[in-house]
Amino acid sequence: MESSTEPSCKVAKIDIHPFHGFKEARVLNELKDKKSVFLHAVVEPGNKDAVVILEKKPFDTSEEGLASLLSSETELQQVISNDIYSTYSATPKPRHGMLKTTMIYPATQKHIDKYRKQEVVVVEETYDDYKNITLPYLEEENKFSVQWVFNILDKQTESERIVFEDDDLETGFILLPDMKWDVSDLNSLYLIALIHKRGIKSLRDLTAEHLPLLRGILSKGQKAIFDKYNIPKEKLRIYVHYQPSYYHLHVHFTHNDFDAPGTTVTRAHLLSDIIQNIEIAANYYQTKTLTFVGRKEDKLTIALQKSN
Amino acid sequence: MESSTEPSCKVAKIDIHPFHGFKEARVLNELKDKKSVFLHAVVEPGNKDAVVILEKKPFDTSEEGLASLLSSETELQQVISNDIYSTYSATPKPRHGMLKTTMIYPATQKHIDKYRKQEVVVVEETYDDYKNITLPYLEEENKFSVQWVFNILDKQTESERIVFEDDDLETGFILLPDMKWDVSDLNSLYLIALIHKRGIKSLRDLTAEHLPLLRGILSKGQKAIFDKYNIPKEKLRIYVHYQPSYYHLHVHFTHNDFDAPGTTVTRAHLLSDIIQNIEIAANYYQTKTLTFVGRKEDKLTIALQKSN
Repeated sequence: MESSTEPSCKVAKIDIHPFHGFKEARVLNELKDKKSVFLHAVVEPGNKDAVVILEKKPFDTSEEGLASLLSSETELQQVISNDIYSTYSATPKPRHGMLKTTMIYPATQKHIDKYRKQEVVVVEETYDDYKNITLPYLEEENKFSVQWVFNILDKQTESERIVFEDDDLETGFILLPDMKWDVSDLNSLYLIALIHKRGIKSLRDLTAEHLPLLRGILSKGQKAIFDKYNIPKEKLRIYVHYQPSYYHLHVHFTHNDFDAPGTTVTRAHLLSDIIQNIEIAANYYQTKTLTFVGRKEDKLTIALQKSN
Repeated sequence: MESSTEPSCKVAKIDIHPFHGFKEARVLNELKDKKSVFLHAVVEPGNKDAVVILEKKPFDTSEEGLASLLSSETELQQVISNDIYSTYSATPKPRHGMLKTTMIYPATQKHIDKYRKQEVVVVEETYDDYKNITLPYLEEENKFSVQWVFNILDKQTESERIVFEDDDLETGFILLPDMKWDVSDLNSLYLIALIHKRGIKSLRDLTAEHLPLLRGILSKGQKAIFDKYNIPKEKLRIYVHYQPSYYHLHVHFTHNDFDAPGTTVTRAHLLSDIIQNIEIAANYYQTKTLTFVGRKEDKLTIALQKSN
């Protein structure tokens, strides 16, 4: 993270059109099935690095959207024709080709590494590993710098996006749309609950004293989402990541119909399971070996694999 | 399928432009993360049915493609700006919006049903629910008929496919490739361990007495896969499904690089977690509420939702 003294001028630096100064770009990773690409670009004035994420948007399935897609406005070229089956290459009106673009600028080497495709391995972390390896590693790498989270909690930014707040400093939280969610599409609903209390880094810090916090996030988050979006709890997946991407405890709320990244059993932990596990054993998360998928070249992965 | 006597004239029937005669269209299913949509359309001349599949194409990541995408040819609208992070809604040149289109025309009701989405919901099953609702339901529906599993265990079929066997009747198992796996591709490795012991239906039946069985499957399965395929345990996801698709305990071994279906946190339970949970509390799986995703119209789903 950069210092927060000049938060807004950074975007302005890239001229009126943010893509204008791009000198070169290379692919860090591509998810072909998701029609997403992760780029490392160099921006001309000053040769600064940027990470640019391009994702094709889902189809506009409104009545007008379908009418326009399935009309002669769409140019078609036949590829295969066999009996009742045929395939085409189609070019619809430009508005159907819209992208979601995310830019990190200026980007550090860490941002670039984060999006580079890397070999991953399944890692096991005992609680001793956590204390002796993971925690010192996180401290050394300064992974606890979560200024952008504090900006939200302190209403410095994004306060207009808050969907629900419980302002109790011990058990409260702010619920807001995740940056990855295009809020117009309820079926890919994705919200994040950021807890007000500082210093709870992850699952590993949770004990019986946090049960009121966790139960509150579960029930109040479900209710807030129902009240605002009319999505009932039977449609929600509510979970925490381990390892998380930032070490200020947060809970993911995603629509179950949406194949959100990070919902696999090697990364996601259901909030309802977490609550029950702590009820069964107060020190569950200070006892249990946790399995997660790590990048093969990450220092933490290498250190944990050595200890096994 | 239609008869194959007039294979080519059918496409021609829809005029010069195949989308020209579309009268109405409705969404059968949508995979938002894959930017794909499955439509049922009615075609004007004769009101015949068509299934139309639209998929956005992956990005053109050639040098020219990237240069065009990351240029001022792409229209940008800023959505969020926070510190070094910003997001935009972007409209690139029309050629970046190309689609793959598949058409089935004329389509039968079976084609339409094949692509229709089945609604799913997140279901919670307490142990009381299991005893009072799930177990009687499974018995009534005769879900315990797993003759095909017994055929494998008794070497009546598929014995040539066995990768490893521990023939102990209490703690042994047979390891063999899953039917979904094309064994030529190691990166999508998928094996199943079927336990020899009869009568252990699922996770719900597991207690401390099964720890030797579970530990044996974990360590011997890992070793057998390494010996035969040279895939180390750090590349394997090893888990059980709940609800399983058949009620004779079995363990899934899949390659971690492969996005296998049924690895999400609402269906998969890591074998290493199961072992530890039983070590922490011998009756863990006779106590805990288990969360899973069920089809909304399934009898079991309906019965469990009523009890909540």
